[in-house]
Amino acid sequence: MTDNLPHHVVIVGGGFGGLEVARQLTSAKIRITLIDRRNHHLFQPLLYQVATASLATSEIAWPIRSLLRRRENVTTLLATVVDANGKTASVTLENGEAIGFDTLVLATGARHAYFGHDEWEPFAPGLKTIEDATGIRRRLLVAFERAERCNDPNERAKLLTFVVIGGGPTGVELAGTIAELAHETLHGDFRNIDTHDACVVLVEAGPRLLPGFKHSLSDYASRALTRLGVEVRLGHPVSQCTSEGVVVDGDLLPASTILWAAGVAASPAADWLDAPADRAGRILVEPNLTVPGHANIFAIGDTAHVVLPGGRMVPGIAPAAKQEGRYVAKVIDARLRGDAAPGPFRYRDAGSLATIGKRAAVVDFGWATFRGRIAWWLWGFAHIYFLIGLRHRLAVALSWLWIYLTGQRSARLITQGRERLADPPAIAPSAPAAAGLDAGRADLEGARDARQ
Amino acid sequence: MTDNLPHHVVIVGGGFGGLEVARQLTSAKIRITLIDRRNHHLFQPLLYQVATASLATSEIAWPIRSLLRRRENVTTLLATVVDANGKTASVTLENGEAIGFDTLVLATGARHAYFGHDEWEPFAPGLKTIEDATGIRRRLLVAFERAERCNDPNERAKLLTFVVIGGGPTGVELAGTIAELAHETLHGDFRNIDTHDACVVLVEAGPRLLPGFKHSLSDYASRALTRLGVEVRLGHPVSQCTSEGVVVDGDLLPASTILWAAGVAASPAADWLDAPADRAGRILVEPNLTVPGHANIFAIGDTAHVVLPGGRMVPGIAPAAKQEGRYVAKVIDARLRGDAAPGPFRYRDAGSLATIGKRAAVVDFGWATFRGRIAWWLWGFAHIYFLIGLRHRLAVALSWLWIYLTGQRSARLITQGRERLADPPAIAPSAPAAAGLDAGRADLEGARDARQ
Repeated sequence: MTDNLPHHVVIVGGGFGGLEVARQLTSAKIRITLIDRRNHHLFQPLLYQVATASLATSEIAWPIRSLLRRRENVTTLLATVVDANGKTASVTLENGEAIGFDTLVLATGARHAYFGHDEWEPFAPGLKTIEDATGIRRRLLVAFERAERCNDPNERAKLLTFVVIGGGPTGVELAGTIAELAHETLHGDFRNIDTHDACVVLVEAGPRLLPGFKHSLSDYASRALTRLGVEVRLGHPVSQCTSEGVVVDGDLLPASTILWAAGVAASPAADWLDAPADRAGRILVEPNLTVPGHANIFAIGDTAHVVLPGGRMVPGIAPAAKQEGRYVAKVIDARLRGDAAPGPFRYRDAGSLATIGKRAAVVDFGWATFRGRIAWWLWGFAHIYFLIGLRHRLAVALSWLWIYLTGQRSARLITQGRERLADPPAIAPSAPAAAGLDAGRADLEGARDARQ
Repeated sequence: MTDNLPHHVVIVGGGFGGLEVARQLTSAKIRITLIDRRNHHLFQPLLYQVATASLATSEIAWPIRSLLRRRENVTTLLATVVDANGKTASVTLENGEAIGFDTLVLATGARHAYFGHDEWEPFAPGLKTIEDATGIRRRLLVAFERAERCNDPNERAKLLTFVVIGGGPTGVELAGTIAELAHETLHGDFRNIDTHDACVVLVEAGPRLLPGFKHSLSDYASRALTRLGVEVRLGHPVSQCTSEGVVVDGDLLPASTILWAAGVAASPAADWLDAPADRAGRILVEPNLTVPGHANIFAIGDTAHVVLPGGRMVPGIAPAAKQEGRYVAKVIDARLRGDAAPGPFRYRDAGSLATIGKRAAVVDFGWATFRGRIAWWLWGFAHIYFLIGLRHRLAVALSWLWIYLTGQRSARLITQGRERLADPPAIAPSAPAAAGLDAGRADLEGARDARQ
């Protein structure tokens, strides 16, 4: 019913950037097709809380098509884009189907990067999707379950050692929350282990945590994490990840749970268009966020490398992606109205935030910094505010209030891939594939076995 | 630290029955080991709401060990029991480990039964575990997504046909909620299909729905479902389930989504002990719920066939399992105190409840019956009341309030097993196994691919 509208805008990716474009495009002259391989928009800043059993998956994910239901001119497609072609002005779906566009917006996001060590992935999973989060949650909880059943002290120590690689916001937030999970939430639940023996190690190759923040806040974060019982190792590059643990400075740190928060790489969008890209695969876009040589193709969010006047790069965070999305919508609207094109994209730094457990945080507004409890409340309100919809705000607020008051986390579910607790191979840092196969068995057995 | 306590009670299964035993055993003379293959106690009466995107998984599941954390003499074990032996007085775990007991309580639950047609399972999954529920949720939502992309009218009609087999409470509740999901929640979200075209069929071999209820309520349920747009087919046995659909009375009803709610069979517990069992595998227990020939082994819940004075069998519902658990705890305590054994188990029928969508329900207390809106409120309050813990009550109440006011369901996530929407084989009622393998791929790609 919208096919008669002249201008077709195809948006690939329903993350913060892509969704913002769809929401901000107001021109009546267009029809929009938003394509995402998942049916949900994910609030990634809180994904670590799903991984640590603090929030339920549905509290931070929204069906994209219901977010856009009122936008009559928007069609949402659950599909995977495998190629984009500027000459034919079309994108190709996983089934070979081609979808033509007048304007294309690439907001295809990023995946973890292992700096040429992809073989580490099975042992040190990263955190990008809902499945990553529930998978990590499963690994964390199963490690304690296995320790409870383990009689070999060395093996038990290994099971209770959790290594987080990468000292950025995600790494800091994961490490802090895992420490709270072990020392507070799970304490008293076990009979054969004392969860206070759990050892959480945060390894950062660089000289300080939270490189994006002021030094004073980095130092504060280290101290706050140490208070939570996290062992912070700065200036220690990881040279190896295996089922035995991680090798730091040539020494093996035995650990059965390793989490990767050390880096991301962009989607293959740059390859699709043979566009110039940085080492992480982000397209080096023009000042108006178009792909060089393609005036009608935009790249935003983690797909784009946007240089700031000072030479710094726009950070790969949600607010930046949203600003870029809003800008691109303006440009497209202006073109359709025949107005003068807006000036080059300008990034407004809204500040950086990171939590350290449930009582401390660091907030860097540039013009002012906050730390500790007040920063935590700032962080909390900011994130509740940016959640979409009253219903999710209420649900998340309730979950947080509960954890804050009782220390109990309600999402402590070991689901999918029911590891066979007693035979290490099935668990020993299982590759995502293996985990998936396990999930297969779980599905099968879930349906076949008796519940016991 | 509890090993010095003389009497060891092993409970297999953390469902309603097993958990109740652990909670009610008060004697200081015992230590308890509760073994479950899952880490969570599941509130199965609401599992259909997870399958229909109304509730989040963590809203109806609790970590067993945290439910029992204050019970110093209870050890919770995440393990799978594969055998039980009366002579050696021990149970065997999946890793061969044997655990001795003085008293054993078998509360191992049930699985779906296909009346000798296990080959139907891949095409008509049942609803027993969290994974079953998220798997069914995925199938329901993916069917609409595929229909949105489908141009063949016949294929589209098949994709929009949902068949529920079995007219008991679960079947009635599934059919009603799927109808609401299609006609209310999803309406307006799609551009190429009208979700009002979705066809929900409830097939029951017997002469009426809800056989456990008074006839008047069965009739009311049929009318209420019809009002919701469900096609109710009574007295029609299903003779075949395939990827094409279901065969009813020799006619093929093309449907890509078939759900099984027609029957359950007990766990293999009876085989472990060579105990007398009914056709569904339930142990024919003594009046005091012990297994014939094993005075120190009890069977409760779906594991036991308990005959009522009138000759009827105690129904396989949560309240019955809880009453049996409480009774067994009394018997064990009495034995340890040397008191006279309590009389035979007596079942108090607390009544039967079933919802039909979000505005109607039927309640049969025996001495009184309710229907419609008031019954729905009775049902709602009863279920909120029986949820464990204030936090879950608040969360579920919020979810229901929201659905009631807005019709929007917040748990509409397609997770795990990312079906390739465009190639039917990957989806066409995928066996749980296949779904699992898909989940494997999803995990893998979740971690590897760009989010798009």
